[in-house]
Amino acid sequence: MAQLLIIGGSDAGISAALRAREIDRSVNVTVVVADSFPNFSICGLPFYVSGEVPDWRRLAHRTVDEIEREGIRLLLGHMATAIDPAQKTVEVVNTGGQKQTLSYDRLVIATGVAPIHPPVVGLDLPGVYLLHTMEDSFQVHHHVAERNPQTAIIIGAGYIGLEMADAFRHRGLQVALIVRSEVLRTTVDASLARVVEDELRRHDVEVAKRVDVESIQRDGSRLMVSGSNGFRKGADLVLMAVGVRPSSELAARAGISTGARGAIRVNREMATNIPDIYAAGDCVETWHQITQKYTYLPLGTTAHKQGRIAGENAVGGHRQFLGSLGTQVVKVFDLAVARTGLREEEARNAGFDPLTSESKTWDHKAYYPNARELLIRVRGDRRSGRLLGAQIVGHWQAQVAKRIDIFAAALFHEMKVDDLNDLDLSYTPPVSSPWDPVQMSVQDWAKSKERASD
Amino acid sequence: MAQLLIIGGSDAGISAALRAREIDRSVNVTVVVADSFPNFSICGLPFYVSGEVPDWRRLAHRTVDEIEREGIRLLLGHMATAIDPAQKTVEVVNTGGQKQTLSYDRLVIATGVAPIHPPVVGLDLPGVYLLHTMEDSFQVHHHVAERNPQTAIIIGAGYIGLEMADAFRHRGLQVALIVRSEVLRTTVDASLARVVEDELRRHDVEVAKRVDVESIQRDGSRLMVSGSNGFRKGADLVLMAVGVRPSSELAARAGISTGARGAIRVNREMATNIPDIYAAGDCVETWHQITQKYTYLPLGTTAHKQGRIAGENAVGGHRQFLGSLGTQVVKVFDLAVARTGLREEEARNAGFDPLTSESKTWDHKAYYPNARELLIRVRGDRRSGRLLGAQIVGHWQAQVAKRIDIFAAALFHEMKVDDLNDLDLSYTPPVSSPWDPVQMSVQDWAKSKERASD
Repeated sequence: MAQLLIIGGSDAGISAALRAREIDRSVNVTVVVADSFPNFSICGLPFYVSGEVPDWRRLAHRTVDEIEREGIRLLLGHMATAIDPAQKTVEVVNTGGQKQTLSYDRLVIATGVAPIHPPVVGLDLPGVYLLHTMEDSFQVHHHVAERNPQTAIIIGAGYIGLEMADAFRHRGLQVALIVRSEVLRTTVDASLARVVEDELRRHDVEVAKRVDVESIQRDGSRLMVSGSNGFRKGADLVLMAVGVRPSSELAARAGISTGARGAIRVNREMATNIPDIYAAGDCVETWHQITQKYTYLPLGTTAHKQGRIAGENAVGGHRQFLGSLGTQVVKVFDLAVARTGLREEEARNAGFDPLTSESKTWDHKAYYPNARELLIRVRGDRRSGRLLGAQIVGHWQAQVAKRIDIFAAALFHEMKVDDLNDLDLSYTPPVSSPWDPVQMSVQDWAKSKERASD
Repeated sequence: MAQLLIIGGSDAGISAALRAREIDRSVNVTVVVADSFPNFSICGLPFYVSGEVPDWRRLAHRTVDEIEREGIRLLLGHMATAIDPAQKTVEVVNTGGQKQTLSYDRLVIATGVAPIHPPVVGLDLPGVYLLHTMEDSFQVHHHVAERNPQTAIIIGAGYIGLEMADAFRHRGLQVALIVRSEVLRTTVDASLARVVEDELRRHDVEVAKRVDVESIQRDGSRLMVSGSNGFRKGADLVLMAVGVRPSSELAARAGISTGARGAIRVNREMATNIPDIYAAGDCVETWHQITQKYTYLPLGTTAHKQGRIAGENAVGGHRQFLGSLGTQVVKVFDLAVARTGLREEEARNAGFDPLTSESKTWDHKAYYPNARELLIRVRGDRRSGRLLGAQIVGHWQAQVAKRIDIFAAALFHEMKVDDLNDLDLSYTPPVSSPWDPVQMSVQDWAKSKERASD
């Protein structure tokens, strides 16, 4: 009976395990899980800290029981320390220091990410946190729930940074958000980033831009954060959220090739350069469907897809990962901020001639109560008319997320901007318009193009 | 300077006018409008009657001023009575009985629909209403607002029937809904129709099925509705909503061919069989993208698309109408009921071998507050795996409408059911799951297919 070994018990690892068992009930699947929390929704951590999810156990996509019921063996509290591709074994060590050697016929590496530790003095001080693992979230949660902090500083405005600003405000803390860049968010265009910044300020989040944090020091019972340009600010709690890097050292030591940002190289079947070793999720390079190049773009949705494909192929399949479009959405207070496809610079670098329009529309017929304004940016190639990307900012209950998905489906099929008018989309006054906002925005793009060529 | 004449000032007619002027600023456009309400959102009438839209003027997609500002001449209160294709003229008569003959170079017929008058005695009694025109809605609104009715009977459970049940309940009336069929809604499958029926009863709407209404009689100050199987029920107000038929007599008298249900025959460029005469909207046959056949499927979204294409082609374009998928959504109290693609029987008639799965999923991660259950039915062809249709019922604020649009985009591209797993859809816990409900439901379909072939 074939042995499938999987290193990593988060999105990609468990997806691979489930898919392998779904296809081949005879395969033995073992998942090596570093902590005791397999298949937890890491994207849900901010909502546990905010108190919106009262019980952390609910963050599990599936319980240990549910996973084991699928015939999957979980080795909890075990770190993989070495892969021997010649012997087809993996060395693991448990929390008590005991070593064990596991053999495999096929291996899936799904080791995820590690947080970036910037060169800042004082990262190890009590009261300075990351939010990357369940253990991290227990610590932050404990601090907020038990020690009654009044003020928090968040360093970094990635998804975690933004969501934690919301979460801390939900807990009643005063919050300052510190970013290095000129604009708040680099994943959406500047005009939309400004809307996000306004939303933060509207909810009394102080935003400090162009600040390079240099040190964190104790200051009585508080922490003092210092940075470039004379920045100094005290708080009871500091959260570092400056990003992640692929956890690929284990793979690299075994001779597996790495590429962009140090991520593991895989082909479209999620196979590494070493026979019988697959890799998936946040630790691998991601094929981009539009640029037709590998990049580094770690996202939970992609991890699930890649894990499923790795699991299918590890038991004999040949399914291909068709690529990421970088589709993503984040909720920041009342706003959803969504994007898919290429940004201006990415489009230019990929050889396109991007033209971008910005539209303001109602999410549904304005005569029906509670119509919300949507800001939609559409990007297309001036020469071919091909859709290259879209971004939407609007009230999070105004179907922003699934509207960006209509664009994502159009990108998937390499549609021209103008052709989105042919899509037969649904309408009733409380939820849309006879031309959906998606279509009104592509009609605006066509007008921009005409004006630009006049 | 070319003369474009358009008969009909609703969705298709005004869309044609606007598009023609957008493309060719030199064309003279005249729109013959039977009443004084061009470009009104007829889909919004129930929300005016309910009181949710306090001022009927807000139902205008555009005001008369806004339309005229685009260089479009509106001939309000004029009925077209005859088309002479040889002379290229149209005879119109105004409300005062004065006749006028208008000449055209190109003509667009957008005469919409007429309500079906079933063979029921007493349709002309005071207190018996249709809801088809602005004038109808003023009458119903007046009755409800001024005459303090306590009870209403609605005959027919099409969109207007369902929305009016909601509207009358909103006004505090007791409501009974009478339908001829065994199931409440024939546009969605029986299991979803039952959910709609439950929602109506939950909001104290009495539902009477398998009743053929035969007569309406005065009964003191009330109306008595009688029907098959000894049905008798009294009410202060009766609304007939048993459906519509294409308004095609004017065209037929001019020698224009008609087809399904008497609708005007057009080709994919929205041209009729007579040179220089186009037609669009609810009065024409609709090309169905999946069956690749003409059918009758009047929808506001389709009317806008066809009108835009007719307008573009009337000034020299050659754009094709790519077809309808029958995508539609209706809000019934707290539910959205959405569908796209083929129903079981339609699929079978089109030569497919349909297999349908039904899934129950949360609209977003259940740990985040206010998760709502979605019921999703996926229909695919057993042999080819091709997606044929989908239906969703769930809370109207759970992105039901734009989720059906993801299916609609997939249908547009003739995707296989399984391939929807490759779509890069957006996710954050408050709005979705790492696999969107759309994708979870297609995974269930694949499992159904395996079970069915075991």
